[in-house]
Amino acid sequence: MTKQRIAIDMDEVMADPVSRFLEWYERDHGIALKLDQLHGKKVYQIVSEEHREIVLRYPHEVNFFKDLKVMADSQEVIRRLSEKYEIFVASAAMEFQHSLFDKHVWLQTHFDFIPWKNYVFCGAKTIIHADFLIDDHAYNFQDFTGEGILFTALHNVHETGYRRVNNWREVAELFL
Amino acid sequence: MTKQRIAIDMDEVMADPVSRFLEWYERDHGIALKLDQLHGKKVYQIVSEEHREIVLRYPHEVNFFKDLKVMADSQEVIRRLSEKYEIFVASAAMEFQHSLFDKHVWLQTHFDFIPWKNYVFCGAKTIIHADFLIDDHAYNFQDFTGEGILFTALHNVHETGYRRVNNWREVAELFL
Repeated sequence: MTKQRIAIDMDEVMADPVSRFLEWYERDHGIALKLDQLHGKKVYQIVSEEHREIVLRYPHEVNFFKDLKVMADSQEVIRRLSEKYEIFVASAAMEFQHSLFDKHVWLQTHFDFIPWKNYVFCGAKTIIHADFLIDDHAYNFQDFTGEGILFTALHNVHETGYRRVNNWREVAELFL
Repeated sequence: MTKQRIAIDMDEVMADPVSRFLEWYERDHGIALKLDQLHGKKVYQIVSEEHREIVLRYPHEVNFFKDLKVMADSQEVIRRLSEKYEIFVASAAMEFQHSLFDKHVWLQTHFDFIPWKNYVFCGAKTIIHADFLIDDHAYNFQDFTGEGILFTALHNVHETGYRRVNNWREVAELFL
């Protein structure tokens, strides 16, 4: 029997770019933003208006995606998923030219059991052909032909209408 | 009506890596390989056995994919296709870590009318969801759910079993 295919988003699902935003913002402006300010919001929405552009530029800069923290339990759960499912990593990386190399290195470092044949860096995720897509952005599910599973992130807490998993332990419960 | 989607491979379809192989091989070994030696073969298959590994390493090196020549008529035909079809560029770039940035820059330079949202860098093309895939490697069609269109390259001249286009003018005839 063919294995079902699960595509998994990177940012805020496998990797933690939010901590990098906060780290760089404090480095540049001496202001320590707090995670509870991010309830239902993106980082650029909680900074002062004159800092918005600066924050939106961060992911375009060299090294932003380098050495990001790994999301809790993601390694163990994805390793177990990969025994029963065909796992693809699907990252909308194309907006950020300098992220491509760093994301490749990051995956080889932290998820060495996923072969590079199963990485996909794309722009629009409409191109992804899979049975499931685990992602923190509901807009990626709109033209997706499989089932979207919303991975909880601070910015998406008000989103409804998709099956939601709050963490990797809940992903394990759902799929294993 | 929704536009049909055509995914287009980069190497030997939009961009010319063969000339780069020959250029680097002559630079390193002083031997000018000829295109007619490549009939039904890849570059590594026509060099002496002790040079095989060296040639296979080239695409892993920095700058191999930088400033590749654009395939004849590809810009004009893809521009016309993009008016009637949804065009995605689908490159199996993941094997070559250093190619990712160069391919991104190359597309922005030579195909600026294709938005980055429509780039896909992948490993296995089974992940691609499209109606057509124009590619020089028939193995990419095996688990593809749309129709594979084989773009003639020197290495694939003996391949049968797929609809074949010999150049971009023939792609235009087929789709326009």
